Amino acid sequence: MPATARKAVAEALATFLFVLSIIGAVNSGSPLTPLAIGFALVVLVFATGHISGAHLNPAVSVAVFLRGGLTVIDLVAYIVAQLVGGALAALVSLALWPASDKALEINSGRAFLVEALFTLALVWVVLNVATAKDTAGNSFYGLAIGGIVFVGATTVGSISGGGFNPAVALGLSLTGHFAWVSLWLYILAPLVGAALGALLFRVLNADDAKKIGKD
Amino acid sequence: MPATARKAVAEALATFLFVLSIIGAVNSGSPLTPLAIGFALVVLVFATGHISGAHLNPAVSVAVFLRGGLTVIDLVAYIVAQLVGGALAALVSLALWPASDKALEINSGRAFLVEALFTLALVWVVLNVATAKDTAGNSFYGLAIGGIVFVGATTVGSISGGGFNPAVALGLSLTGHFAWVSLWLYILAPLVGAALGALLFRVLNADDAKKIGKD
Amino acid sequence: MPATARKAVAEALATFLFVLSIIGAVNSGSPLTPLAIGFALVVLVFATGHISGAHLNPAVSVAVFLRGGLTVIDLVAYIVAQLVGGALAALVSLALWPASDKALEINSGRAFLVEALFTLALVWVVLNVATAKDTAGNSFYGLAIGGIVFVGATTVGSISGGGFNPAVALGLSLTGHFAWVSLWLYILAPLVGAALGALLFRVLNADDAKKIGKD
Amino acid sequence: MPATARKAVAEALATFLFVLSIIGAVNSGSPLTPLAIGFALVVLVFATGHISGAHLNPAVSVAVFLRGGLTVIDLVAYIVAQLVGGALAALVSLALWPASDKALEINSGRAFLVEALFTLALVWVVLNVATAKDTAGNSFYGLAIGGIVFVGATTVGSISGGGFNPAVALGLSLTGHFAWVSLWLYILAPLVGAALGALLFRVLNADDAKKIGKD
Repeated sequence: MPATARKAVAEALATFLFVLSIIGAVNSGSPLTPLAIGFALVVLVFATGHISGAHLNPAVSVAVFLRGGLTVIDLVAYIVAQLVGGALAALVSLALWPASDKALEINSGRAFLVEALFTLALVWVVLNVATAKDTAGNSFYGLAIGGIVFVGATTVGSISGGGFNPAVALGLSLTGHFAWVSLWLYILAPLVGAALGALLFRVLNADDAKKIGKD
Repeated sequence: MPATARKAVAEALATFLFVLSIIGAVNSGSPLTPLAIGFALVVLVFATGHISGAHLNPAVSVAVFLRGGLTVIDLVAYIVAQLVGGALAALVSLALWPASDKALEINSGRAFLVEALFTLALVWVVLNVATAKDTAGNSFYGLAIGGIVFVGATTVGSISGGGFNPAVALGLSLTGHFAWVSLWLYILAPLVGAALGALLFRVLNADDAKKIGKD
Repeated sequence: MPATARKAVAEALATFLFVLSIIGAVNSGSPLTPLAIGFALVVLVFATGHISGAHLNPAVSVAVFLRGGLTVIDLVAYIVAQLVGGALAALVSLALWPASDKALEINSGRAFLVEALFTLALVWVVLNVATAKDTAGNSFYGLAIGGIVFVGATTVGSISGGGFNPAVALGLSLTGHFAWVSLWLYILAPLVGAALGALLFRVLNADDAKKIGKD
Repeated sequence: MPATARKAVAEALATFLFVLSIIGAVNSGSPLTPLAIGFALVVLVFATGHISGAHLNPAVSVAVFLRGGLTVIDLVAYIVAQLVGGALAALVSLALWPASDKALEINSGRAFLVEALFTLALVWVVLNVATAKDTAGNSFYGLAIGGIVFVGATTVGSISGGGFNPAVALGLSLTGHFAWVSLWLYILAPLVGAALGALLFRVLNADDAKKIGKD
C-alpha cells in the first residue's frame, strides 16, 4: 500500500473509533463522560501514532503542516480521511443511539473563544510531545494529547460542547448534538487556535528543524 | 516449569484477578466502576505482560495468533487458562457478594455490534502497542490496553454490559449478571471483532514480521 | 547519612504523605476518593522509588524481603519507619479533621479474604514491575502499583475499608475509622496475601536472580 | 530569542493555560473538577518541561532555585512570568464566566497547614522526578507532578481551596474565588512548604550534584 494511503486509512479508522466513542460517551450520561472522551484519544494516539502520527483532527493536521511535518498531499489526504471517519462514526452511531432532538445552544463569542483557546492548547501539546527533538522517544505523548482534551471537555464543555476538532464537529452535527448553523464556528475557531499554537511552537522551539521527515 | 505451563498459569492468575475486580466493581455501585475495570487491566497487563503477553482474553489470544505471535498449542493453553481464571473468580466472588438476581437484558443486534466494534478497537490497540516493531520498548502498553476497555465500558456498557472478552462473559454469566442464553453473543461478537482487528493490523502494518518470537 | 537511615527516612516521609492523603480523601466525601488514594501512591512511588523502593507498606516490604530484595536489617527499619509515618499522619490529621465517631463494621471472613486477595494482587504487581529483570527501566511502575490500590479501594472498599497495608490500618485505627479490635486482621491478612504473592512471583519468575542488590 | 526570555514566555503561556483550566474546572461544577485540574498540570508539564522545566508555580521555582537548578535571574523571570500568566488567565476567564460573588471562607490555621504540607509534597515530587540523576530520562514526570495536585485538590480542597501555588492564588483572587485578605497565606504557606521540601531533597539525595545545568 502506498505510504499516503496507508496513513490515511489509519487516520480514518482511528477517527472513526474516536468519534464513535465520543458519541457513545455523550449518550451514556455517565459522570465519567469527559474522561472517557479524553482516554479514547489517549489510547488511539498510542496505538496509531507510529503509523500516521495519529492526528485524528484536521486542526492538528494543519498545525503539523505549518510546523513542517506534513506534505500538502498528506495534509489533504489526512483531512479527507478524518472527515470520512467522523461521518461514518455518526452514521453507525445512529444504529445504536437515537439522534439528539435538540442541538446544543451556544453563545458564539464565548464558544469561539474556548474552541480557539483549547485547540491552541491541544496543538501546543501535540507539537511539543510528538514533534520536538527534545522529547523524542518518550512514552507519554498519548497521555498528554488525550489529557488536554479531557481537560477541555470538562472545563469548557458546557460553553461550546467541547469540539476542538472539525471532524468531531461534523460527526456531532450529523447526530444532532451540534447545530449545522454553528458548524463554521467549529471549523474556524479550531483552525485559528491551531495556527496560533503552531506559531508559538515555532517561536519557542527555534532550534527544532523547520521540516521533519516523519510524524 | 515448561514455558507454556508458566505462561498459562500467569494468564489464569491475572484473568482471575481481572474478573474478580470486574465483579467487585460492578457490585460496588461506584460512579468509578468503569474506570476501576479499565485500571484493573492496565495494572495486570503491566505486571504480567513480560511473562505471557497478558492477553487475559480469548479474543485477544485469537488475534495475536492470527497476527503470528502465538503457537496453536499456546493458543489453546491460554484460552483454557483464561476461562478457568474467569470461572474461579466468579466462584470466589460468590463468597463476597450475592449473585445477581436479574441478568442484563440486551438487544442482540445492538449488543453484537458494540461487542464486535470495541473488541476490534481493543485488538487494534493490543497489536499496535504490544506487537509492532515501531512501538517496541514503550512504557505505555498497559495504559493503552486497559484504557480502551474503560472507554468501552463507559460508552457502550449500557448496551451490552461491556464484555469484549469471553472469559469475562463466562464469569459474569456464572454470577448471574449476564444471561446464559446470550453467552454465544459474548463469545462470537468479540471473535468477529478480533479477527477484523487482526486483519486491519496486517494490512496497515505490512512491514512487521509475519511471525514474532515472543509476546 | 548511612544508607539504611536514608532509606528509612524516605519511607517514613512518603508513608506519612500517603496516609495523610488517605485520611483526607476519606474525609472529603468526594466521589473521587478511591482514585485520589490510588494516585497518592502512584505519585509517591514515582518520587521515592529511586531512594528506598517506595514500599510504604510493611506487607510489601515483607514480600520484597521474601523475594530476596531486602536485608533483615532494612526490613525491620522499613517497617518501623512505615508505622511511624502512618501514625504521625494520623496525629497530624486530627488537627485538620475530627476523628471518626464510628468505626467501620466488617464481616471478618469476607474482610480477611479481600484484604489477603488484594494484597496478593498488589505484591504481584510490585514484584513484577519493580524487581523483575524483564521490566527493568520502565516508566510505568508507579502507575501500576498505585493503580491496583485504586482498584482495590473501589471494588472491595465497602467490605474491608480497603487497607491492604498495616501502616495504613494503624493510621486509620488512630483516627477511629478502623476498629482497634480488627487491627489483627488488617495486619495478618495482608501478610498472608503478601507471602502468597511472593511465592507466586518466585514460581513464575524462576529466571530472576534470587537476590537483588537494590530495590 | 535569549534563553531566559524563551523560558519565561513558555512559563507565562503554560501558567496561563493552567490557571484558565483551573478556573474553568471550578466553574464547571463537575465531579471531575480536581481530576481536570491535576491533568491540566500533567499535560502542560509534559508539553513545556523540555523548554523551561514547566514549574508554572513560584513556589516550585523557589524550590528548584534552592536545590541549585535555577539562576537568580531566571528565578525572578520565572516568577514574574507565572504571575503574569495567572493574572491574564483570570482576566480572560471573566469573558467566559462571571466572577465569584463569594470568596471561600477558610480557617487560617488549617489552611496554612494544608497549603504548606501539600506544597512540600509537590516539591518533593518535582525535585525527585525532574531533577534527580537517578530518575533522568523517565516518561512519568508530568503524571507524578500533576497527580499530586489532583490528590491535594481532592483531599484538602475543602479546607484551603487547594492553591499550593501563588500564581494560581493570584488568579483565583482576581476572579473572586479566594479572598484578597488571605493572599498572604496562599503565598507564604507554599513558600514554607517549598523550602522544607527542598531541604528534605537535599538531605535525602546528597549524592545529587549541588548545581544542575538545566531543568
